[in-house]
Amino acid sequence: MGEFELIERLFRIPAAALAERRPGVLLGIGDDCALLDAGPLAVSTDMLIEGRHFFPDVDPAALGHKSLAVNLSDLAAMGAEPLAFTLALALPAERARDLAWCEAFAGGMLALAAGHGCALVGGDTTAGPLTISITVFGRVAPALAPRRDGARIGDDLWITGTIGDAALALEQLFAARGQGGAGVTKADSSAGGTDTDAVGASPDAGPAAIPTRHRLERPTPRCALGRRLPGLATSAIDISDGLAGDLGHVLAASGVDAVIDLDRLPLSPVLLALAPDARWRHALAGGDDYELCFTAPVAARDAVLAAAAVAATPIARAGSITARAGDRPAICWRRGDAPVALALRGFDHFA
Amino acid sequence: MGEFELIERLFRIPAAALAERRPGVLLGIGDDCALLDAGPLAVSTDMLIEGRHFFPDVDPAALGHKSLAVNLSDLAAMGAEPLAFTLALALPAERARDLAWCEAFAGGMLALAAGHGCALVGGDTTAGPLTISITVFGRVAPALAPRRDGARIGDDLWITGTIGDAALALEQLFAARGQGGAGVTKADSSAGGTDTDAVGASPDAGPAAIPTRHRLERPTPRCALGRRLPGLATSAIDISDGLAGDLGHVLAASGVDAVIDLDRLPLSPVLLALAPDARWRHALAGGDDYELCFTAPVAARDAVLAAAAVAATPIARAGSITARAGDRPAICWRRGDAPVALALRGFDHFA
Repeated sequence: MGEFELIERLFRIPAAALAERRPGVLLGIGDDCALLDAGPLAVSTDMLIEGRHFFPDVDPAALGHKSLAVNLSDLAAMGAEPLAFTLALALPAERARDLAWCEAFAGGMLALAAGHGCALVGGDTTAGPLTISITVFGRVAPALAPRRDGARIGDDLWITGTIGDAALALEQLFAARGQGGAGVTKADSSAGGTDTDAVGASPDAGPAAIPTRHRLERPTPRCALGRRLPGLATSAIDISDGLAGDLGHVLAASGVDAVIDLDRLPLSPVLLALAPDARWRHALAGGDDYELCFTAPVAARDAVLAAAAVAATPIARAGSITARAGDRPAICWRRGDAPVALALRGFDHFA
Repeated sequence: MGEFELIERLFRIPAAALAERRPGVLLGIGDDCALLDAGPLAVSTDMLIEGRHFFPDVDPAALGHKSLAVNLSDLAAMGAEPLAFTLALALPAERARDLAWCEAFAGGMLALAAGHGCALVGGDTTAGPLTISITVFGRVAPALAPRRDGARIGDDLWITGTIGDAALALEQLFAARGQGGAGVTKADSSAGGTDTDAVGASPDAGPAAIPTRHRLERPTPRCALGRRLPGLATSAIDISDGLAGDLGHVLAASGVDAVIDLDRLPLSPVLLALAPDARWRHALAGGDDYELCFTAPVAARDAVLAAAAVAATPIARAGSITARAGDRPAICWRRGDAPVALALRGFDHFA
C-alpha cells in the first residue's frame, strides 16, 4: 500500500466526516493547508517517540488514544475547547505494512477525537522511526484563559483526579520486563527511579497484574472541567512531568510559593497502600498523570466545586499559594501542620 | 545543559521578541498553549527526519532554514500570509550537547521566520532521533484561497522560479559521496533514480562543484506571490514531490487534465544543458523545488504578471487546463505541437 493510499484509508475518510460537522473547520485534510475560522485559538504541540515515550510493543489503540490525549490535556489547562488537530506521523516500513496495527492506531486516536469534537484537519506521513507529532487547536476566550502566571497569594490549589498512578504502573511494567527488557530502557528513567515520560506499555504483561495500568495507557484529558475554568481559575497547568515540577513552573511564572498538605493529595487506594517514600515519589515526581493543577480564589471555592460536579470531574483542594520566601520558587510540603522534607526533581530529557 | 535551559537559550528569547511584535499573537512560548487571535487561519504541518529528508552532516543553519521553508511554502500555496509556527524537535543527546550546532540550527530557522514575520509560539523538545516537525499558521481569506479543486478548463497553468535544480543537486551530492555514502541512502530514492525527498546536503562536498546546491539547501518559499493569489488563481499547489505528481493532485481534485509545453517549462541554464532524459526527470519527477504551480483564467493573465512583478517572483506560463479525457487525470506533454511520451511517477515513501 502506498503512502497516499494509507493516509486515505486510515485517516481521511473518518476525519472528513467529523470535520464536515465541526463549525469553525472550513477545510480539512487534502489540500496544502486546512482552513479554520473559529475565532481566537489556543495552540499546543507534542512529539512522542518509540523507545522513549512508549514501548515498541505498545497496544496501538492505546498509543493512538494517548498521543492525542496528551495534547487535549494542554488545551484543558488553557481553558480551551477542542476544535481540531494535525498529525505528523513517521512509520517504519514494517509498521506501514501492518494494516491491523495502523487501523488500531488510527481507531484509538479518532475515537478520542470524536468524543471531544476534535477534527483531524491535516497531516504528514513519512517513513522513519515511529514518531507521532500532534498539534491541537482549541477555541478559547483569551482574556480569561488561565495562564501559568496568574496564581495569587492566598489562592486555593486544586488537583483533578488522582496523581501518581501512571508512574506506579510504569515502574511495575519495568519490573515485569526485567531491567534489561526491550523498549524503553532504564536510561530513560529519572534519577528517582521513576520514568516520568512514557506513554504506553506492553500488552504482554497482563492488565490484572498492574492495577493502575489504564491510567498510564489511556489517560483522560480533563477537557470537561478545563473549558469551565476561564473566569474561575487564576492559573492552570496540566501535570505531565510530576506535580512538583509542573507546579514549579506556575510558581516561577507567578512569582509565588505554595504549601501542599500531603494528606490532602488525591491518591488512589493503590498509591495509599504504598510505603510513604514510594507514594510521594510517584505522586509528586512521577509523570504521565495528565491531571490539571489550578489555582482559584478562596471566594470561588463553591463555584469550583460546582463546575467540577457539572463536569463530572473529581477534584481535591490540596494546598494554597503563599508569598515568595526566597530567591527561587519553593513548595512547602506538610502533613497537617508538620513540615515534611522531600527531595524531588522534575524529569529532564537531557539530564 | 538541561532540556528547559536549552529551549530557553536557543528559542524562547528571540522568539518572544518576534511574537510580541506580531499582531494576532496574544501569547507565545512558555505556557500550556499559545494564544492566537488573527481571524481565519490556514494550517499545515510537515515532519523531517535525519537520514530520510536530510544528511546527518547537513549544515545546521540550512536545515533550520529549510525545515521552516517547506512549511511556509504550503502557506504560499494556500494564498496565506505567515503568522506563527510551532516546533516539535527530537534531538539525540550528542546534538543537544553541541551548542554550536543547536545555535546554527535555531539561527537558520529564526532568521527565515523573522523575514516572513512568522513567530515561533510553541514547541516540544525531547531526546530522540533527529526529527523536526513544524506546524505553521497563516492569515487567509478562506473564500478566496486557491484550493486544489478549483482548476477550470481553459485556465492558464503557471509555475514560479525554476524546477528540477534541487533534484539535480541531490543526485550530484549522491555521486560525490558514492553510492554507499553515509546518510540518506539509495534505498530512499524513487525508481527514477532521483530522490525527491531530501532537504539538505553535506557540507563536505564543495558548493562550487554543485551549481544548484543552494536550491536544495535553501529553498525560497514563494510567500510574496502566494499571498497575492487569492482572487486571482483558481487553484494552487506547491511543488514538493515533482511537478508531475503534484499537478496530478490538482487535476484529480478538479476533475480535469492538463497540457504542458516542455519547452515552456522554467528551467535553469544548468538543467537546460542536460540531456533531455535527465532534464525531464529532474524537472518533472524530482522533488524539493518548493515552487508554486497555479492556474488562473486567461482573462487574468495580465493581472498574474503584474502580481508576480510586484512580488519580484519569476513566473512562466507553461501550459493550460483541458477537459478530462479518460478515467484518470492525465498530463499531455508536448514540445510545441508535438506530443512527447514520458514515463514518470511521483515519489512514494512506502513504495
